[in-house]
Amino acid sequence: MKIDFLTLFPEMFHGVLNESILKKAQEKEAVSFRVINFREYSEHKHHTVDDYPYGGGAGMVLKPQPIFDAVEEIKKQSASNPKIILVCPQGERYTQRKAEQLAKEDHLLFICGHYEGYDERIREHLVTDEISIGDFVLTGGELASMVIADSVVRLLPGVLGNVDSPVLDSYSSGLLEHPHYTRPADFRGMKVPEVLLSGNHKRIEEWRELESLRRTYTRRPDLLETYPLTERQKSIIKQWKNEN
Amino acid sequence: MKIDFLTLFPEMFHGVLNESILKKAQEKEAVSFRVINFREYSEHKHHTVDDYPYGGGAGMVLKPQPIFDAVEEIKKQSASNPKIILVCPQGERYTQRKAEQLAKEDHLLFICGHYEGYDERIREHLVTDEISIGDFVLTGGELASMVIADSVVRLLPGVLGNVDSPVLDSYSSGLLEHPHYTRPADFRGMKVPEVLLSGNHKRIEEWRELESLRRTYTRRPDLLETYPLTERQKSIIKQWKNEN
Repeated sequence: MKIDFLTLFPEMFHGVLNESILKKAQEKEAVSFRVINFREYSEHKHHTVDDYPYGGGAGMVLKPQPIFDAVEEIKKQSASNPKIILVCPQGERYTQRKAEQLAKEDHLLFICGHYEGYDERIREHLVTDEISIGDFVLTGGELASMVIADSVVRLLPGVLGNVDSPVLDSYSSGLLEHPHYTRPADFRGMKVPEVLLSGNHKRIEEWRELESLRRTYTRRPDLLETYPLTERQKSIIKQWKNEN
Repeated sequence: MKIDFLTLFPEMFHGVLNESILKKAQEKEAVSFRVINFREYSEHKHHTVDDYPYGGGAGMVLKPQPIFDAVEEIKKQSASNPKIILVCPQGERYTQRKAEQLAKEDHLLFICGHYEGYDERIREHLVTDEISIGDFVLTGGELASMVIADSVVRLLPGVLGNVDSPVLDSYSSGLLEHPHYTRPADFRGMKVPEVLLSGNHKRIEEWRELESLRRTYTRRPDLLETYPLTERQKSIIKQWKNEN
């Protein structure tokens, strides 16, 4: 997979793309990143990339020309048809399902604005996907694009050491994860639940399933609405409801 | 405000914290960041920070000792009582409202795990806030913590140039933003709406209000459920509903 970032702040990317899983994924040639400053594509003599909004108002707006030209140059060089992604509050809410879809693509291109708005023509005529990572405001699209890239790259074949890992995560299973414990069994008086020390795999499995269900019921009951509950799970939840 | 990050990958932070708004916020002394590798707090002779999970299973679990000791050391040095934040899929969903709450704090401390799970005792006995930035899986808490820090720091007094800017964003107003346009009025045949070139401020204001409402109605109807709509807005929406 190829992932390109168009940004005015290329320095933001280096540390993130060259550590941990994203670094390993590049070494394994599962992904290659390019970080491109779209200011270089500006035809303006001072390389400006933004201008005042038509109709007045505070803030600046990113001009169409530099971004159109940068994207078109990248598309010309690309063997496949890249997904052109704008990260913005107005976009489709990002979820694990979208990460799985993007992981099937050959080429992702992120357009990262910063403070400014985007000229609407970029949105209407250039972009294929508008994505929002959540209902909060960031100073730019850079961090949100890195978040999306991270969640996609870890799904690419061979990137995570254990082939099974992505499947076992929260959301992938549809329920939140059960609690984890490691040594020591008694840390400053705080103890690990007995069952985990029992060596009884059936009891451990049951405990984990129950705790995963309990955590989801307590913290994210909305996830249960679409989860295919077993009859046993349904009756446990009914009991919890009666207790309250 | 002080913001500390506990992480095993300190290199991930440098580029993000030293660019753009976060850099300016430090220069203005609105915020100071520290990135601390909690491996340094491990009492283990090889400075290990994780171990196998009790009860078996794939993956490693972060041990309580290094994180407890790092947090307790930081708390001892802190004049105020820091918020101790764990970013994880099981947490409370992050929103602009939470950003506004965190912006009132003196000291935030993020615990960033990576691949591994956290020993449950960290969650139960150390952490004050568990936050999820969305229903997707990341390789670590670093990017999510930077996302939260970015959204909080931009709300601190004096950080954004224009004092009014934070209020005008999507979500802050409760509706999505209207489209923006800048020069040229005709870009490769794609034109700016006439009204924005009219110089008629009343008509421009009405157009923007309508487009903001339309975008919210089309893309995020859930936001309208809690938004205090005027009678005029209600009747416009009723008309759109009838048209479909």
